[in-house]
Amino acid sequence: MNGNRFGRLFQVTTYGESHGPAMGVTISGCPAGLELAEDDIQVELDRRKPGQSMITTSRDEPDAVTINSGLQDGYTTGTPLGMVIQNKDARSGKYEPFITAPRPSHGDFTYSAKFGTRNWGGGGRSSARETVNWVAAGAVAKKLLATEGVDIQAHVNQIGDVRAENVSFEQMREHTEDNEVRCADPTAAEAMIDRIEQYQGEGDSIGGSIHFEARGVPRGLGAPRFDAVEARLGQAMLSIPATTAFEFGLGRTAREYTGSERNEDWTIDDADDLVPVGNDHGGLQGGITTGQPIFGEVTLHAPTSIPKEQRTVDWETGEEKTIQVIGRHDPVLPPRGVPVVEAMVALTLVDFMLLAGRINPDRLDGDLGEYRTEYHPRSPGNQ
Amino acid sequence: MNGNRFGRLFQVTTYGESHGPAMGVTISGCPAGLELAEDDIQVELDRRKPGQSMITTSRDEPDAVTINSGLQDGYTTGTPLGMVIQNKDARSGKYEPFITAPRPSHGDFTYSAKFGTRNWGGGGRSSARETVNWVAAGAVAKKLLATEGVDIQAHVNQIGDVRAENVSFEQMREHTEDNEVRCADPTAAEAMIDRIEQYQGEGDSIGGSIHFEARGVPRGLGAPRFDAVEARLGQAMLSIPATTAFEFGLGRTAREYTGSERNEDWTIDDADDLVPVGNDHGGLQGGITTGQPIFGEVTLHAPTSIPKEQRTVDWETGEEKTIQVIGRHDPVLPPRGVPVVEAMVALTLVDFMLLAGRINPDRLDGDLGEYRTEYHPRSPGNQ
Amino acid sequence: MNGNRFGRLFQVTTYGESHGPAMGVTISGCPAGLELAEDDIQVELDRRKPGQSMITTSRDEPDAVTINSGLQDGYTTGTPLGMVIQNKDARSGKYEPFITAPRPSHGDFTYSAKFGTRNWGGGGRSSARETVNWVAAGAVAKKLLATEGVDIQAHVNQIGDVRAENVSFEQMREHTEDNEVRCADPTAAEAMIDRIEQYQGEGDSIGGSIHFEARGVPRGLGAPRFDAVEARLGQAMLSIPATTAFEFGLGRTAREYTGSERNEDWTIDDADDLVPVGNDHGGLQGGITTGQPIFGEVTLHAPTSIPKEQRTVDWETGEEKTIQVIGRHDPVLPPRGVPVVEAMVALTLVDFMLLAGRINPDRLDGDLGEYRTEYHPRSPGNQ
Amino acid sequence: MNGNRFGRLFQVTTYGESHGPAMGVTISGCPAGLELAEDDIQVELDRRKPGQSMITTSRDEPDAVTINSGLQDGYTTGTPLGMVIQNKDARSGKYEPFITAPRPSHGDFTYSAKFGTRNWGGGGRSSARETVNWVAAGAVAKKLLATEGVDIQAHVNQIGDVRAENVSFEQMREHTEDNEVRCADPTAAEAMIDRIEQYQGEGDSIGGSIHFEARGVPRGLGAPRFDAVEARLGQAMLSIPATTAFEFGLGRTAREYTGSERNEDWTIDDADDLVPVGNDHGGLQGGITTGQPIFGEVTLHAPTSIPKEQRTVDWETGEEKTIQVIGRHDPVLPPRGVPVVEAMVALTLVDFMLLAGRINPDRLDGDLGEYRTEYHPRSPGNQ
Repeated sequence: MNGNRFGRLFQVTTYGESHGPAMGVTISGCPAGLELAEDDIQVELDRRKPGQSMITTSRDEPDAVTINSGLQDGYTTGTPLGMVIQNKDARSGKYEPFITAPRPSHGDFTYSAKFGTRNWGGGGRSSARETVNWVAAGAVAKKLLATEGVDIQAHVNQIGDVRAENVSFEQMREHTEDNEVRCADPTAAEAMIDRIEQYQGEGDSIGGSIHFEARGVPRGLGAPRFDAVEARLGQAMLSIPATTAFEFGLGRTAREYTGSERNEDWTIDDADDLVPVGNDHGGLQGGITTGQPIFGEVTLHAPTSIPKEQRTVDWETGEEKTIQVIGRHDPVLPPRGVPVVEAMVALTLVDFMLLAGRINPDRLDGDLGEYRTEYHPRSPGNQ
Repeated sequence: MNGNRFGRLFQVTTYGESHGPAMGVTISGCPAGLELAEDDIQVELDRRKPGQSMITTSRDEPDAVTINSGLQDGYTTGTPLGMVIQNKDARSGKYEPFITAPRPSHGDFTYSAKFGTRNWGGGGRSSARETVNWVAAGAVAKKLLATEGVDIQAHVNQIGDVRAENVSFEQMREHTEDNEVRCADPTAAEAMIDRIEQYQGEGDSIGGSIHFEARGVPRGLGAPRFDAVEARLGQAMLSIPATTAFEFGLGRTAREYTGSERNEDWTIDDADDLVPVGNDHGGLQGGITTGQPIFGEVTLHAPTSIPKEQRTVDWETGEEKTIQVIGRHDPVLPPRGVPVVEAMVALTLVDFMLLAGRINPDRLDGDLGEYRTEYHPRSPGNQ
Repeated sequence: MNGNRFGRLFQVTTYGESHGPAMGVTISGCPAGLELAEDDIQVELDRRKPGQSMITTSRDEPDAVTINSGLQDGYTTGTPLGMVIQNKDARSGKYEPFITAPRPSHGDFTYSAKFGTRNWGGGGRSSARETVNWVAAGAVAKKLLATEGVDIQAHVNQIGDVRAENVSFEQMREHTEDNEVRCADPTAAEAMIDRIEQYQGEGDSIGGSIHFEARGVPRGLGAPRFDAVEARLGQAMLSIPATTAFEFGLGRTAREYTGSERNEDWTIDDADDLVPVGNDHGGLQGGITTGQPIFGEVTLHAPTSIPKEQRTVDWETGEEKTIQVIGRHDPVLPPRGVPVVEAMVALTLVDFMLLAGRINPDRLDGDLGEYRTEYHPRSPGNQ
Repeated sequence: MNGNRFGRLFQVTTYGESHGPAMGVTISGCPAGLELAEDDIQVELDRRKPGQSMITTSRDEPDAVTINSGLQDGYTTGTPLGMVIQNKDARSGKYEPFITAPRPSHGDFTYSAKFGTRNWGGGGRSSARETVNWVAAGAVAKKLLATEGVDIQAHVNQIGDVRAENVSFEQMREHTEDNEVRCADPTAAEAMIDRIEQYQGEGDSIGGSIHFEARGVPRGLGAPRFDAVEARLGQAMLSIPATTAFEFGLGRTAREYTGSERNEDWTIDDADDLVPVGNDHGGLQGGITTGQPIFGEVTLHAPTSIPKEQRTVDWETGEEKTIQVIGRHDPVLPPRGVPVVEAMVALTLVDFMLLAGRINPDRLDGDLGEYRTEYHPRSPGNQ
């Protein structure tokens, strides 16, 4: 039951199964006055799309989005945006022998145990195909954040034991899309691709991680205690399929730092503003943004669908079975996960911007005189 | 912003404008195991559909629903049901001269004042066309309620000053659909139709009301205080466009009853069960269901779109204008409102059934052995 | 379960039983910078307090509020306000013979049926004593609304069949507190008091109604469709114990108006602003505020606790019993209901003000320089 | 603003500042029929209490809880539990020189930037004192979970670079409370205490981590996608002050595992039930519980309040200042964090149990005949 909604003011609701007729996402709470076209969304969907390279699944999906509502003359109207993405290349027949013999470490067993049924053609609702909805919604969130100068970038910083060098925000912005593994460190990228091809050749898959950073986030976002920015980011990141760890700032290594090492003195910067002398805190103190960049890291385990032989049991017959998932599957998740992580960070932050009154929830500030439909009081003061 | 969601466990999210590409509704929280087909929904949509008779708008909409997700082999899977209804007969051009000259008593002005823009082709998001989504969702809620013996009926009990006799639940069930005004009292129905045609002939419209009743509702639903059944029903009914009053039990007349008149002694019924001696309380005491039928009444004002000449002002030019809304509009709302009221009662009650554990939120009780996908523990006790 | 929360951004959570140790209310989401003291709340609690006159219960409760958090130097801090009101005059012993013999038309039966137990000393959680929490929260909401020029008034406009003349907002403001029945029409007030005393003398009680009006509400509040202002107001009003009807604008009478009668042309007012020529719409079009006053009416049935003899049955023994509720009970609800209605209107509207960005959710606009704790950027532009 | 609520059906609302009059927590949605006394809560509060040993703050707080509502004859009634814990040993005067000179890496700056004010006596709302509310609520959740056989244990598994051996659930249950650092590995515990005393002697503090495990969790909890169990657990854990990482199952190390290493074949266990051959998945597949133990790890950074000299700047005067937080502060957080982690895991899981219908939301199953207040139908079938 439920679980198909994200966000408190920027409310996203999704539906769809991997091999069903269509995926869909509704955004309620996007202010009026945002210039928006299907192309704005398509560009992000194309980054997540299957079939981009040899290291992604070959499933052939155009992932073309249709916006059914919420636009007038190319601008949002403040009413909900309903979007649909048709599934074109669904092929579920091959899963039939495994309806009651669950694939190892998939959601097959848990869905069947919970609901007494499941959409057994592929991963159904548990498939990463669902993230197409998230990326579509995230594209809108990103456009909205851009109006306030907030920018989000991510790249793949580890595949197996190949770790990228730390890269700057600018490096990510310029180089993440340079290679098919979406790693902004070109040397590491090559090593990562080698490693992936090696596992792929063995009929296996491998885990990895994604680093993200958000710039331009104003001070004062976040609502302690249960709505601390890190808490909501954590929920967002751990919703992403295959995520097993979320860290921000010093992350897991913080346990080995002393207070005097991690604490950051306050100082006055060139603009005569009060700032901390570093950013070990990852942009968040007391659950609230300091104005420093927010950054963190997400671990994704290896894809569970692998050609290598695995064992399962049919729960109806008790028969042991051998299973080889020889489908169109990714050998590694982070490369296509980069736009997903960016989308979920954007959805989290845009919600906080609205909640803190940094973006007006009804309509964007600024000159809306261009809309013929805006009510213009005929004299000043009649607001 | 927002406002496009209804329900806490049976969560409905909607989108769509009167003259946009399509309407859409997503249900999250429908348990698995409910037999459901598009036809189940279509039958309710057809009751609400425009163009049914001379006393409804002639807009030609098939209102055909497509279910994009959430079904497997004809049963719900517990994952969200995404539904889309295309708008086929949208014609918005005629509204163009009135973009900045609001129609009297419509949402034109308030939407433009709030959002700085609006979907000006027809009522946009404020149109009663939105209720097609509610009826679609309500059809699912009704099917779910039926599995527990809860049944809902409504009929038109007043048009202008023509009041129907009080009718029983059975009369409503059998006779509401007998006439185009959806009044289960045939004599009143005739008088209502006369009255409607009279106003229609004058280029005018008229108000009316709908009586509803729910049978078979178990004891103990409702969660005081702010989630009293009447409070949530009130929110549901007052969401319906044009509603200006909601009453339950004795309703407005309760103000003239003494305590001793309205109070109901407790007695033992034929089945040796404790029951109140009447139902002035309308099925609700302390905000919780008693097991007696729940009933109430909803007043809908006259349609605001009328051919009669009215006055408005263009806010851009200051020019006074004459407006005649000679479209395809209903002269009265209750006949098409009956399925809408039933749908909103159903959505309210099904939510309370889930919240009280009366319907299992994950999957329907009973023999699910027919699903090949259900996990069957191989020995007793392994639940 | 649940039901103890109201509001989406101005979030109120309550607890407490009629004869338990204390009542409590927490407000989360009140912006920082509101000047607030316990006295601001006490003045409203005193209007609702028992024992004010001969026509209210004689239960002796000082209803003194303690604020446990959320204040610094007399101003709100943006963190939650926790408030507690001790119950001083709880006497539950007399209810003991009726633990399993429910009082007619109370929540005794439904609570026991739902929860399998109940706080049987008095009405427990179903008691109107709970509204002390609402009035405390409403007092804060009123102060917050006053900073934006929104003002709310209510008065008793009917007791039994005694109806007050229509009164203006100013009359309500000046005269509602003039008499113990809280009716701003002095002639009707006298008749109402006579009527109440008559029923009181007969060991009976009587119903009545409350009219409310909100002035200064800006245009553009409300979020169609399910968060139409009337829908949320309806939920709020129908949460009030004993409410059986909620109407706004023309209310129930709207069913007898034609479209041309009810519709309101648009015109230009003295300030060169676009306004409707009347207010039959009660301040709301398309679920959104027009800027005209919002007004409506709430029907409260007669108190169910009456000295007159009534009949009940003990569900354990099957024994029929006679019950006379000779306690300290109100013979009529509206006089003490006036501050409750005002509180619930205030809570509803303040939430919409926050949701529409009309009140900054983090802190009040304006010069906060007086707070020593505010962060002042040391140069312009470092916001 | 907001952020003071946790849980969807088991709803917790909190208030209180470190040096304010009192802390408070309200639980709405606890079913009726749970045996509960203040002592059940006190025992958990005592584990979290300051002043337990040399390695905790010496602030002297009895942390005595008062339950103001929701109980009848020692059992919950299904209505909200309102709890208050008085602050006895608040001393805020010493913070006065630092009102506008924020302590390094505290919430002082961010709260002031967000709200324009703050409760400057100590950490105010950002203080870990708030977690006293969480432990109180968690104690109720634990009792409720115990009725269904769910048990939760945590212990400190790392302080600085001292890492404990992996311990079993039983070891945690028996030995976590054996030493003041709450580490179930006695050898590591000694090393940890040495390390803490060393840093304490240097006027410094140190980070650490907590391992938790939940046993007896039934299959089928969790609601993909955004309500995946790991997503909600992540939000819960990252709400805990000082948390910088949350991991479950293989956690961060999963990035270095291949699919074939991490995937777990399905097999038949001794009870003829289908089970995975390991628990690298940490009890969760597809966001839903498998029935295997759920386990994870939480990193807490070093306390930011340290006697060592640090630098700050007064934003009013621009003056640089030296600050030494020589208060009553913990040199390390995990030992007192253990009951907090357990509480937040319990609150998360009890919510999922209710949402999945595993615990009846209105009242506990089983023989409630002992309550005199339960309604007993007088003949079978009258439910």
